[in-house]
Amino acid sequence: MATLNENDVRKNLESLPGWKLAGKAIERQIEFPDFKAAMKFVNAVAEAAESANHHPDITINYNKVRFALISHDSGGVTQRDLKMAGKINQLLGK
Amino acid sequence: MATLNENDVRKNLESLPGWKLAGKAIERQIEFPDFKAAMKFVNAVAEAAESANHHPDITINYNKVRFALISHDSGGVTQRDLKMAGKINQLLGK
Repeated sequence: MATLNENDVRKNLESLPGWKLAGKAIERQIEFPDFKAAMKFVNAVAEAAESANHHPDITINYNKVRFALISHDSGGVTQRDLKMAGKINQLLGK
Repeated sequence: MATLNENDVRKNLESLPGWKLAGKAIERQIEFPDFKAAMKFVNAVAEAAESANHHPDITINYNKVRFALISHDSGGVTQRDLKMAGKINQLLGK
């Protein structure tokens, strides 16, 4: 799948609140009330990631979770990453 | 709780296979067959962490998981970190 250039990524991020460009990936950090709430959300994202067969890198620091998305096989951000970022935002809204 | 000096940490790590000193923390990276297996183990560790009220920093890159332990309030490695590292190894052995 074709990678998007930086301008296209930035344009797409305008409709993905919380996400920013970080190197060649896009990332979002989310703060939860505690570790338990953080893990619950990580598991919801993990399930969505398995369904889509597209897995964010996940960093958990107690109540703070950072998701990073990049299409490793393409070497940059593709529509698959934007789609998963949108899915994560959707799960967060639930 | 008192932090251990570097020599004491290294000595204790001799009986904690897979763990190494990384800056002021101790860490272990573990590779699983796939993301699903990685998440299953992360959840087992999360449960143990909640029980002990001592939470490792967790990084998940598909099938690779890195756990880092430090006692943030003490500013270094304490017996609590060594105990949780031992618990993680024990869970891995199951």
